[in-house]
Amino acid sequence: MLPPIGYAARPEAVRRALDGRTLIVSAPSDLRWLTSFGGSLGWAVIGPDRFVLVTDGRYADRAAADAAAAGISPDIVVASTRPEIRDHVVAAARGGQVVADATHLTHAAWLDFTRDLELAVAPDDLTIRRLRRVKDAGELARIARAAEIADAALTAVAAQLAEQPSEADVRDELEYRMRRLGADGPSYDTIVASGPQHAARPHHSTGRRTIVDGDTVIIDVGALVDGYHSDMTRTFVVGEPDEQQQNVYDLVLEAQLAGLAAVVAGVDARAVDAICRDVFDGAGMGGWFLHGTGHGVGLDIHEDPFASKVSTDQLVVGDVVTVEPGLYRDGFGGVRIEDLVAVTETGCLILTHLSKDTPCLPSRPTT
Amino acid sequence: MLPPIGYAARPEAVRRALDGRTLIVSAPSDLRWLTSFGGSLGWAVIGPDRFVLVTDGRYADRAAADAAAAGISPDIVVASTRPEIRDHVVAAARGGQVVADATHLTHAAWLDFTRDLELAVAPDDLTIRRLRRVKDAGELARIARAAEIADAALTAVAAQLAEQPSEADVRDELEYRMRRLGADGPSYDTIVASGPQHAARPHHSTGRRTIVDGDTVIIDVGALVDGYHSDMTRTFVVGEPDEQQQNVYDLVLEAQLAGLAAVVAGVDARAVDAICRDVFDGAGMGGWFLHGTGHGVGLDIHEDPFASKVSTDQLVVGDVVTVEPGLYRDGFGGVRIEDLVAVTETGCLILTHLSKDTPCLPSRPTT
Repeated sequence: MLPPIGYAARPEAVRRALDGRTLIVSAPSDLRWLTSFGGSLGWAVIGPDRFVLVTDGRYADRAAADAAAAGISPDIVVASTRPEIRDHVVAAARGGQVVADATHLTHAAWLDFTRDLELAVAPDDLTIRRLRRVKDAGELARIARAAEIADAALTAVAAQLAEQPSEADVRDELEYRMRRLGADGPSYDTIVASGPQHAARPHHSTGRRTIVDGDTVIIDVGALVDGYHSDMTRTFVVGEPDEQQQNVYDLVLEAQLAGLAAVVAGVDARAVDAICRDVFDGAGMGGWFLHGTGHGVGLDIHEDPFASKVSTDQLVVGDVVTVEPGLYRDGFGGVRIEDLVAVTETGCLILTHLSKDTPCLPSRPTT
Repeated sequence: MLPPIGYAARPEAVRRALDGRTLIVSAPSDLRWLTSFGGSLGWAVIGPDRFVLVTDGRYADRAAADAAAAGISPDIVVASTRPEIRDHVVAAARGGQVVADATHLTHAAWLDFTRDLELAVAPDDLTIRRLRRVKDAGELARIARAAEIADAALTAVAAQLAEQPSEADVRDELEYRMRRLGADGPSYDTIVASGPQHAARPHHSTGRRTIVDGDTVIIDVGALVDGYHSDMTRTFVVGEPDEQQQNVYDLVLEAQLAGLAAVVAGVDARAVDAICRDVFDGAGMGGWFLHGTGHGVGLDIHEDPFASKVSTDQLVVGDVVTVEPGLYRDGFGGVRIEDLVAVTETGCLILTHLSKDTPCLPSRPTT
């Protein structure tokens, strides 16, 4: 039994942050955090004297059941068409000093609302997107459970890489096993990227290629539990790693361990990125690193904070972030090692536990 | 072997529609339609004298390979951070009369672009969202293949409903089988909604409930092939349908057949919705119908045109749409029957072929 998520305290926490303003909430993950509502179409309005959830007839029962189970009591308004939904949101927001997170609301919706409301862009620290960065015990438990499921699935499947499966075979087995282990699904399209070309693409689209001896194989896999995501990458070499494969693997592992060691509340996310980048630059391999070092994970698979060269975020206690440096080169393939960690006062708690000491395949469990 | 998708002709078709303007393309499905690029982060700019695809380092190789395979030649610009991507989009668009589809672009992105560009809202008929409504032979073949895969998976799994699986068991089997049949994945979260409460929710979130004798079971399942979606719903009764179950089933089937018969190029989508609604209203059951009758399907699972009470769309040859009336009541459960069809000059071509004559379970195939 997982500990409950602290929904009951959130409406008041949001009201305190809003300090008299009224917030229109449109992003599904923001809505879920605030109301526990898990449907795909809904809007919330929250202000000093109001808390309204607007959805359509497909979701009416579910919205009420979700809210009751969460111990909160928004006024639930059910509309049957999109124009009606829009009108209910306007009616709920009217009279307040109204703000919305412009990073999710479309420009068309913005124009539409401003026909009837004086709407302002919500400052970053008033958005649910920012408020939900800090995960509570219930959320951490779900992310940790999702990470354990992905650990177990990859443990079972990794040994099969020696048996010439296709990339898609490996993905299918991983996703099926995660479901059987209790996940609601994969937390994103599982990446299985193999060989000199595919593994050289950080976000390869898993295909029909047969995995063969000598390949580097990047497997990026996570599970979804109660709306919460996990994220992990391991890289394997099929057969004996050659010298270059071993060297690149060792360098990525060195960078990843350095990145992990740098994670602590108060540090700039950009500094974590820089530490990994410096390891690669020091080895003359900076040009092989094609992406940022990490990102937040929670109700979204990619959310604040982001650890890249241009990040302005500082890590805080309760952030859950990835540390995932990688090196890629067409003709060689690639190596990425990624863990998911929860930021603490003194460092971080690693949530993904699968061994990363070696690129060699685990031996097949005897069953 | 599926016929090719007609990417090569699209840049010129878009330019003709734009009539001298320059369009910024941000929605992933719009981008894929125009450039064949299947990554998650990219922007395109197309105008009389320009065709640029901007993406980040994770996708550089793939963007070039996708474009070459599609027979088109956008200038591919690779940036390493989001601010750099934004600057490249601005540079590519500058100098033209620039428009963007405001129904996808966020208000924050809009504000950001207008610091450097005179940006206007693209009229609806200049958006890729509208241009991609009409599916070509290659697209239709992929949607039809996806529909066949879902047909085959549900055929294999439906008989198992009598064996007291959980909803999640049924979903897992369906998704695994679709993958093994060649799908890239499910085209959305498969819905398995069973019994008096769950089946009463049109968009129930598939859970651990055990399916038992006497249940209505709504299964809403589709496959994904090369980015193209299918969508189908069938409803079963486990054991002998009681009189109410049979009557509700017959009424939904009557409405669904009436809706299908109304589909033809030139008809208002709203009229198709009204025809289904009238069947329910005539039986005094209108209050049990909780959603619209259908929606377009293609690179998105929900796209133009929409068939609801407030639709202003007229169906055209090449539209691919669902026809999916349903009736739901807490304590009874629910029935929905959904087919996916391609609109033609003289009616429609049904792409989902699984029998819908009866709510009874198929007998288990002898193997």
